[in-house]
Amino acid sequence: MTLRIDLNSDMGESFGVWKMGNDEAILPFVSSANIACGFHGGDPATMRKTVAAALKHGVSLGAHPGLPDLQGFGRRNMAITDQEAYDMMVVQIGALAGVAASQGARLRHVKAHGQLYNMAVNNEGLTRALAQATYDVDSDLVFFCLAGTKMLDIAESMGLKVASEVFGDRTYSPDGTLTPRNKPGAMIEDVNVSIKQVLQMVQQGTITAVDGSTVRVRADTLCIHGDQPGAAAFAKAIREALIAEGIEVGV
Amino acid sequence: MTLRIDLNSDMGESFGVWKMGNDEAILPFVSSANIACGFHGGDPATMRKTVAAALKHGVSLGAHPGLPDLQGFGRRNMAITDQEAYDMMVVQIGALAGVAASQGARLRHVKAHGQLYNMAVNNEGLTRALAQATYDVDSDLVFFCLAGTKMLDIAESMGLKVASEVFGDRTYSPDGTLTPRNKPGAMIEDVNVSIKQVLQMVQQGTITAVDGSTVRVRADTLCIHGDQPGAAAFAKAIREALIAEGIEVGV
Amino acid sequence: MTLRIDLNSDMGESFGVWKMGNDEAILPFVSSANIACGFHGGDPATMRKTVAAALKHGVSLGAHPGLPDLQGFGRRNMAITDQEAYDMMVVQIGALAGVAASQGARLRHVKAHGQLYNMAVNNEGLTRALAQATYDVDSDLVFFCLAGTKMLDIAESMGLKVASEVFGDRTYSPDGTLTPRNKPGAMIEDVNVSIKQVLQMVQQGTITAVDGSTVRVRADTLCIHGDQPGAAAFAKAIREALIAEGIEVGV
Amino acid sequence: MTLRIDLNSDMGESFGVWKMGNDEAILPFVSSANIACGFHGGDPATMRKTVAAALKHGVSLGAHPGLPDLQGFGRRNMAITDQEAYDMMVVQIGALAGVAASQGARLRHVKAHGQLYNMAVNNEGLTRALAQATYDVDSDLVFFCLAGTKMLDIAESMGLKVASEVFGDRTYSPDGTLTPRNKPGAMIEDVNVSIKQVLQMVQQGTITAVDGSTVRVRADTLCIHGDQPGAAAFAKAIREALIAEGIEVGV
Repeated sequence: MTLRIDLNSDMGESFGVWKMGNDEAILPFVSSANIACGFHGGDPATMRKTVAAALKHGVSLGAHPGLPDLQGFGRRNMAITDQEAYDMMVVQIGALAGVAASQGARLRHVKAHGQLYNMAVNNEGLTRALAQATYDVDSDLVFFCLAGTKMLDIAESMGLKVASEVFGDRTYSPDGTLTPRNKPGAMIEDVNVSIKQVLQMVQQGTITAVDGSTVRVRADTLCIHGDQPGAAAFAKAIREALIAEGIEVGV
Repeated sequence: MTLRIDLNSDMGESFGVWKMGNDEAILPFVSSANIACGFHGGDPATMRKTVAAALKHGVSLGAHPGLPDLQGFGRRNMAITDQEAYDMMVVQIGALAGVAASQGARLRHVKAHGQLYNMAVNNEGLTRALAQATYDVDSDLVFFCLAGTKMLDIAESMGLKVASEVFGDRTYSPDGTLTPRNKPGAMIEDVNVSIKQVLQMVQQGTITAVDGSTVRVRADTLCIHGDQPGAAAFAKAIREALIAEGIEVGV
Repeated sequence: MTLRIDLNSDMGESFGVWKMGNDEAILPFVSSANIACGFHGGDPATMRKTVAAALKHGVSLGAHPGLPDLQGFGRRNMAITDQEAYDMMVVQIGALAGVAASQGARLRHVKAHGQLYNMAVNNEGLTRALAQATYDVDSDLVFFCLAGTKMLDIAESMGLKVASEVFGDRTYSPDGTLTPRNKPGAMIEDVNVSIKQVLQMVQQGTITAVDGSTVRVRADTLCIHGDQPGAAAFAKAIREALIAEGIEVGV
Repeated sequence: MTLRIDLNSDMGESFGVWKMGNDEAILPFVSSANIACGFHGGDPATMRKTVAAALKHGVSLGAHPGLPDLQGFGRRNMAITDQEAYDMMVVQIGALAGVAASQGARLRHVKAHGQLYNMAVNNEGLTRALAQATYDVDSDLVFFCLAGTKMLDIAESMGLKVASEVFGDRTYSPDGTLTPRNKPGAMIEDVNVSIKQVLQMVQQGTITAVDGSTVRVRADTLCIHGDQPGAAAFAKAIREALIAEGIEVGV
């Protein structure tokens, strides 16, 4: 059996006259685009252009719904109710699905953005709200969850299609969760270390945690950050390393 | 053959803590709900509740997309390009379609809101943009156009499903267009006069213009205003008069 | 010496076409208007009209800055930094001060709105940010703080003019803070009980807490809620009871 | 008498996480900063930072109020009433004045942004609304008007302080107005041609129109565009040429 992993990246985060990211440079190397839906970033024109660019590169379309906080880019915790979370998911997924439909395409996945995603990781009610909204709009949609968390377990228990998301530029704790960003050693900046971690995830289904222990991990999709300098080169290196090992990149 | 006319009304125009309209009072009498999509009014929770209320009453769902001007409620002319109009239509129709899907339903129609509708009436490029966006999101959608205008002719020539919209509380000019609101005698406030005009539209396919001349009109759907005092009583009277004449109310 | 208390009420919370509150009905009975500044409610036209109405009634002008969450009316907790809080206060106070200046008037006070106020009550950094912003825009401004809290102590220690705010429709805990809303007995709905509590606050400088104990309280300004049914009658009753006791209502 | 001209440039047009312009590179060469106030661009943090940067460089502070169209950056015509224009000016000027006050400074001028400015040039009612709002917030403020237009004449007739604004990178028609952008030869791209035009404006009070005729012009302030590549070099060249001729750059 051929091994395979999806590479996903956030896209379409420009707003009005303001540009962000370098989607065209990243698109050749990834297989899934998480496209902003207008609440934390993105606007109708950007959504159209980003869907078109992803389709041109054969990249799968995903909605990337966020908190209603444009000024804070959806990165500030907001005390929303589960119902509010459900509602904002439905509307944002629907909006991007409309854009996809207008170009003869369909969404394949949904990944909550920024703080909405972070808040869900440890919050059963919120995870259920996000997953249910995704399922209710289109039961074929794949719902992205952070590997090794309750979010993944809960969503899976709901009968939803889920993808377990891993990171190549973050280290892991012995319990299979990410080392918090404010801890030393949380980030991996050496692309070769990243590649090694990613290959181990895909080929062996494990990660080596920061304490040296080996932890099982389910790696369905790898997050590729697109907004740092060198992001495209990093994405290219990861992709080429995977292919060199005979691993398919795709959904 | 049984005569039939659709009764449509704008709905779901509350925003956040601010309430508008009296949807529950109007819903028993209409057959199509034009539901705000968040740009000029409406928000995710209001969209959900309004779709649910319409479904409960067996009322057809329609998107009511507007200009991105919440403070002006989409009533101020904005110099948008045709592409911008297309994009804002796609996103808003998609958003409401997502809400409908999440409740197991589908949209049936699209009616542009306020100044976006007004601007399109005499603007071929804009009409084409709005109609194309509607068709591209879902080619089954019925696109509402003002009776007696180029908007209707153009949209129909595009192969789109269209509905010709007439008014019971406005008088008409000899050319089949509405008497402008700033002219005397533009509004009909007597419900019996309204009923007479509506019955003539449906039964004879004509209107009596302000100069007394008889003009042909295509009446597929009648706009019921929901935001004035007495709106529900007006809607009820119109509906009952239609039914008393053996005319079906519905899409 | 004549006893005196200020009566303050939130005002100007309409937005665009959406109306809220009944400012004209409350204005005759209060002495300070807390006017929304556009972030959680209010808009430029509403700000102008509300300032004009307050001036007409001889009511002091105050800025009522809120969180940047129009859809949630500034009532949802948001994880803003102290710097962000400072910045949003400065801009909102300045905006309303501009409106006041355009009508030949000046602001007298500042009261943070909704969740911004609630968040500050137990947060020294946030209190300092809000108070410093108020002072930096205009060092004559009076900063409203919840009676019996660290917010009041901290602001006062900063050398700022402060007013200690009390409630007539809420009960108090033995530590001088409000009984949380989710506890039974938190609200006082009987206007005579309210009047009795208010008179005791002003005349004796104490409250009777829910356990029967007597607690000292500093009552500079009393919050009058304007958005409930019967709000104007309640405000009128409180004002008349104060005046009947020879207590001045004013700043 | 020493000749003098003010050099003004738009600043502070970033929004949230989205950056725009290169204010720090332009500030050393200009004497007036037109700072966005949050409606078309800018946000509370950006306003604070931009005011601080301008003060550091000894650059005069000005409000740059725009239309309430963040997505369109205030560049789309909107059919606002004169009263709406007045209100949006008051609030935006006030907001930036608050930021200035919080840093111990005052605004010196006001320049309407983008389409709001363009709309006013040929609209007496709108010019009066913008000028009156400026005067009403602070009667010391200088109101920028396009040279050679009714806007300038009207504002001056109102008793307001005005500055006549000229361009170094645009050509002029024989009637003293700018050659429309969509006409050939509207733009001047050669910095030496620009410098020659600016020196003639300041030293002789004239411009050579596109037909070769000489037209009188009042040049109080020169607009320096900051958002093109090479903008800082262009600003530097203009400033150095003025100083080399013994012309003071300043307000």
